[in-house]
This record gives sequence, C-alpha cells and structure tokens, in this order.
Amino acid sequence: MRESGDKILFTPGPLTTSTSVKQAMLRDLGSRDLEFLSLVRDIRRRLVSLAGVSTPEYEAIPMQGSGTFALESVIGSAVPPAGKILVAANGAYGRRLVQIASALKVTNTVIEWEEDQPVNPIEIDRVLRGDPSFTHAAVVHCETSTGIVNPVREIGEVVRKHQRRYIVDAMSSFGGIPLNMAECGIDYLVSSANKCLEGVPGFAFILARREALLATKGWARSLSLDLLAQWNGLESNGQFRFTPPTHALLAFHQALKELEEEGGVERRAARYRANRDILLVGMRELGFEEFLRPELQGYIITAFYYPRHPLFNFETFYERLSEKGYVIYPGKASKADCFRIGSIGHIFPDDIRHLLIAVRQTLDEMGIELTAATRSSRQEEWAPPRRSARHPS
Amino acid sequence: MRESGDKILFTPGPLTTSTSVKQAMLRDLGSRDLEFLSLVRDIRRRLVSLAGVSTPEYEAIPMQGSGTFALESVIGSAVPPAGKILVAANGAYGRRLVQIASALKVTNTVIEWEEDQPVNPIEIDRVLRGDPSFTHAAVVHCETSTGIVNPVREIGEVVRKHQRRYIVDAMSSFGGIPLNMAECGIDYLVSSANKCLEGVPGFAFILARREALLATKGWARSLSLDLLAQWNGLESNGQFRFTPPTHALLAFHQALKELEEEGGVERRAARYRANRDILLVGMRELGFEEFLRPELQGYIITAFYYPRHPLFNFETFYERLSEKGYVIYPGKASKADCFRIGSIGHIFPDDIRHLLIAVRQTLDEMGIELTAATRSSRQEEWAPPRRSARHPS
Repeated sequence: MRESGDKILFTPGPLTTSTSVKQAMLRDLGSRDLEFLSLVRDIRRRLVSLAGVSTPEYEAIPMQGSGTFALESVIGSAVPPAGKILVAANGAYGRRLVQIASALKVTNTVIEWEEDQPVNPIEIDRVLRGDPSFTHAAVVHCETSTGIVNPVREIGEVVRKHQRRYIVDAMSSFGGIPLNMAECGIDYLVSSANKCLEGVPGFAFILARREALLATKGWARSLSLDLLAQWNGLESNGQFRFTPPTHALLAFHQALKELEEEGGVERRAARYRANRDILLVGMRELGFEEFLRPELQGYIITAFYYPRHPLFNFETFYERLSEKGYVIYPGKASKADCFRIGSIGHIFPDDIRHLLIAVRQTLDEMGIELTAATRSSRQEEWAPPRRSARHPS
Repeated sequence: MRESGDKILFTPGPLTTSTSVKQAMLRDLGSRDLEFLSLVRDIRRRLVSLAGVSTPEYEAIPMQGSGTFALESVIGSAVPPAGKILVAANGAYGRRLVQIASALKVTNTVIEWEEDQPVNPIEIDRVLRGDPSFTHAAVVHCETSTGIVNPVREIGEVVRKHQRRYIVDAMSSFGGIPLNMAECGIDYLVSSANKCLEGVPGFAFILARREALLATKGWARSLSLDLLAQWNGLESNGQFRFTPPTHALLAFHQALKELEEEGGVERRAARYRANRDILLVGMRELGFEEFLRPELQGYIITAFYYPRHPLFNFETFYERLSEKGYVIYPGKASKADCFRIGSIGHIFPDDIRHLLIAVRQTLDEMGIELTAATRSSRQEEWAPPRRSARHPS
C-alpha cells in the first residue's frame, strides 16, 4: 500500500506511477497554449531519442486512446490498399494484431508458435521468401500475455533482407528493454504512455521511420486513427488534430523527466530486472513455478502456474492479496492456468519483498502449503537466465 | 488566473475544471479493481440519467480517445455495410461527420446550410422522403464552430417519421443544454468528458438506444472503435476491452458528482447562460459584434467578428489576453474572420467580468478604440434571446 492509500499494481498496466507524475495533472492547459505545445514537442523529441535514433529520420506521433488504438492506427494507415501483412504470433497480443487487420479488412496471414516458444526468424524468412505479396511483417516484442520476449532484432534482419516494412508492438517493453530502432530495422514501433515509461493511461504513441511514413498518403482507413494526418497536424502547428488528453500528456512529460533522472532506459531496465529476480526467487521458494523456461523469461511480467493444490482458487487468492494492498493480474495464456505478476511501474525491490510476504500470508490464510508435488509440469531448478537470452533486441 | 497559476480557459475544450476534479486523479487504480469497476458502472448510470432516459432502453458506452473517436465509433459501427448516412451540416463539425463517413467508406450525402443558419428539418424531411436508401441521419446539436444550436428535436421528429436511425453529435452541448434523448428520438448521442460535464479529456462516450445497438452485430469497421464490442465488454465483466484512462475516469466521476451538487443540468445551463449574457453585453459595450443573429446564439460558445480596425491583429490580441491569464479561441467559421469565447467549464460570471476587463486593457494596449464604424455587417441592438429560440431541444 502506498502512503496515498493506493494499492500497488503488479500488473501489465495501468501501473503504479510516482506521486509527482500524478501531481503534474493538477493543471488545466489549453490545447493551443504555447507551454503545452512546447511540452508536446519535448515529449516527441524524447521518445525518438529513447528509441536510439533521431529526427528527421524517425518521428514520434502520440495517438489518443489505448495502445490498441495506436496499433490499429499503424495497421490501418501504413498498409496500402493492396498490401498484405504477415503476423508472427506467440500469444494473445500477437493474435490481437491479426484481429485488428481482419477488422480493417487488411489482408493478413498469421504464423503461430506455442505460447511458451519465441517467434523464430528462420520461419519468417521462409514465409517471406515464398510470398512476395507480403508488404508488412509484424511482431510483438514482449508478449505481455506470458512475458516472453521475442527476438525483434533477428526478425528485423530477415524482414529487411526481404525489403518489407516492419511493425513492432513494443507496448510493454519500450523504455524498459533497451532497443535501437535503426539497428532492429523497425519502420513502426508502437508503445503506450502507461507501461515502462510510467505515465498514466490516455494515449499511446508511434515511432515511425519518416521515409516509410511519408509513403502512406491516402491509405488510412480511418479519420481518427490516420497516422500520417496526425503527424502532419503536429508538424504544421504543433497541435493535435483532435482534443489531446492534456493532463495525461502533462503527466507523461514529468514521467519522461523522471526516467532521465533515474538514469535512462538501462537503469530502469536494471530496476525492473532486480524486481523480477527477487520475485522469481521468492515465488520459487514459496512453491510457485513460472510458465516460461528460465532462458525465455523476460523481466517485464512473469506468468506463474496455478499450484496444483485443491484449496487454491485464483479469485480468492487475488482478492486477498488485493485486500492487503497488492494487485496482481490474471493469466492470458490460452492453454495453461496461470496468473501474472508485473515487475514494471514505479515499484522497487522492497515492494516485491512486501508482495512476497503478502503472498505467503495469503497462502497461509487459504490453508495452502506448496510442495514439489503441487508444482506444475516443469521441475528443473530456476537459475538466473543469461543476459543474452533475455536481450534479443 | 486561477490560484493554481493556471490560465482560465474560455475555449471549446479542454476546459477549466475544478481543483477537486483534478485532485481525483492523484490515484492509481487497477483496471480490474472492484472500486474502479463500480465507479465506471456509476458513471454509465449517471450518463443515461442525464439524457433523461433509463436503462435498459438506453446504454452509456465510454470510448477511449477524443470526441471524434467516439463519433467515428458510431458511424463505423452503427451504419450497416449497405447503409447510407445523411449528414445535415452548418459548420465544421457537421462537415467532420462527412469526413469520418468518407474515411470509413460509408456512403454519405451532406446537405449544407450557411454557417449562420440553423439546420432546417423541412429540408431533411424532403430528402429522406425522396431517398429510402438513407438508413441514418446525423446532425450536430451545438455547432461548436459558431455556437449555433440546431433543432435536434424537430429534426428527430422527421427522422423518426421516416423510420431512420438518428445520430446526434452533442459534443459541446450534453450536460449544458437540457435534452431528453427519447423525446428527441435519438438513437446515438455522442459527447465528451471535457465539455459541459467538466471532466478532463481522455475519453468520450456514446449513449445508445439498446434496440438500435443490438442490431449492429458484425458491422464494425474497426477493432478499437467497435461500439457493440465495447458495450459487450463492459456488460460482461464491467471492464473495458482495452486499457481505460483510469485517471480521466476518476476525474469524470468526481465531475459528475459536482454536477449533481450544482443542481443538475438545468442549474448548470443557468450558469452558462449567465456567463454568456454577461459576455455578450460586455463585448457589445466594448464594440464587438457576434457572428450569429441573437435568436440563434447559443450559450455554449460565442463567435465574434474581428473588428474592422487597422490595428487589430488576432494573434496579438490572443497572446496579450493569454499573458493576462485568459485563453480565448480562434474562429472556425469558414467565410468570416472570427474568434470564439466559450461560456462553459468551471467558470463563473466573475471570471467573465475579469475577462472583459482584460479585453478592454488589451484593446487599450493595442491602441484600438472600437466604434460603430469598426463593427461588421449587422448593426441591430442586442437583446437577450428568447428562451424558446435557444432551446430547440
């Protein structure tokens, strides 16, 4: 529990944010106000820089709505009428890209992997080689449904080799997992204000390679979500075309300053990794087992199997933790009973330690003692995953 | 200038909100949190009630993004694939409905009026009678571009007579101009959190007649903006399908409670009307003239002609007022040089009086003295418009 009385959110978002980020919202700025326009400009500049690239080759475009709105903006604006998108999916968020394309009647094909397997660039290579009609390929960086991190850089090399456009859903990873957009060959990267950048929800953003963006004129399938028009609007007079969430942008600007004060993406990554390491060791000690093999486990969010214990009930477990001030999240793996615990947001190793104490208390209250027998399938000992495996980007 | 140091916003939004509305955002609530779900439920209940109707005949559906996103959600979800929409337009926001339909490739026809003329139901009757292929008709209630208020009730009678669906863009009027959705025969009403309901921007909402809504299965042209899916999601477990702007919803809930404390829509309308009356008298005294004829002038926002004075420059005028802490807004009439001053938001007659003093000071600083000769075309004396003319709904 925070001093504010708020529960601590160990979720994929909305996340716990700092008090100062929230306090930045205690103002009403006009959407044409020079201070506001300058703040939006600074946000856009900082976002480009966080992707390891620079303007004018790359551009940042905030988009009203949730992350899904921004993904739809890209798929609906960047794929030409006769285009075709290849989606590589190993979880619910990969499949969501397919749902978006289908809703927009954008021709699409999906290659699917099991949810505990990373996307394999070799397979993408094979499919792209075999079908020159694919204009775009899309993948999720960190599959928030399980926490698996896909090798966006290796996939990028393949997509670039075949000269297709490359879309990366970096919703839950951007700002938390170091990434260089140019090195990964990404044309469009999508993320949200309220994930690793620790702002509040209300908008998402797109980082676009300008050359790719400029080629999309006339392709948008929407007025609200027209990516090129949104960018043109911001470029022409610094203003959003349609009412911006001024307060969420004020909070986000503060959040970006706090990221800089923390020491940038590398330092934030280190904090999240420390959160995750303490979480894994502690949960293992309590008798839980994670869904992913250690070498695939990212440090954004971790999925744990429900223990095989007759007294375990997720809703009770969730509610009792919530009553203690700790909010975890249900699973989103399709074939396994899991729950998830996030390591991101304005949370620190001590928060994880307190969460672990609360988990132990909750198990006690529920009369559950976990043993080797209550664990799920995999029984190998957990060892800290090697860095190389966790940083495919 | 507010105690917070914020400028006062006399704009069409984002608007000045109360301190307590902003303070409601100093919390991080999880999107599955029971308190949050209960708050969303209460927001939806209150919105239906503000439209003078009740569930289950009518449903409130919040939608992430700005008001335009919610309008696109309705046009893209409620018009069937073979449908056709008639848009009655007398300003930029009417024309925006056409832009939305065209971007979505929804067949559409627009009837246009001059921007200083209200939409005429007789003409709509004639067009609908002549073309049975129109499935929907849409109009803007208060054309925020000029402040003109269209006769949504009389138009509704015509649309209902012809058994078409009726969409009303009540963005800048809902909660400020009393309206009964059933009496007006409205199937879909769209408004936003940060207009007369005095919340912060971040989402908008749709009020839908359930019977109309339920008939739209399979029609949505978008995943993010799928109106029926958004409603189904909220109904199934109380949650948004995609990350909600939790802080903006917290602010909005507080704003709705403050609307109730103020005495509801009628009392709020009286405050806005008082703001507008003081504004009109004061601006006339200073030598300004409003764009609309008095009997057409609503009390949401007023467009004033640029005075015909060689030293008048809008950008200078705007900047000098802004430096004094008063933010006005540029015009949006297409054939006349105007600026606009809003009467809505958490602003009161004394704020208008202070604004008028600042306008006078600014004119003095600019060396401008307005006389009859500097006025624009119309010279009749202003008299308070009769209520009947201002309340077509």
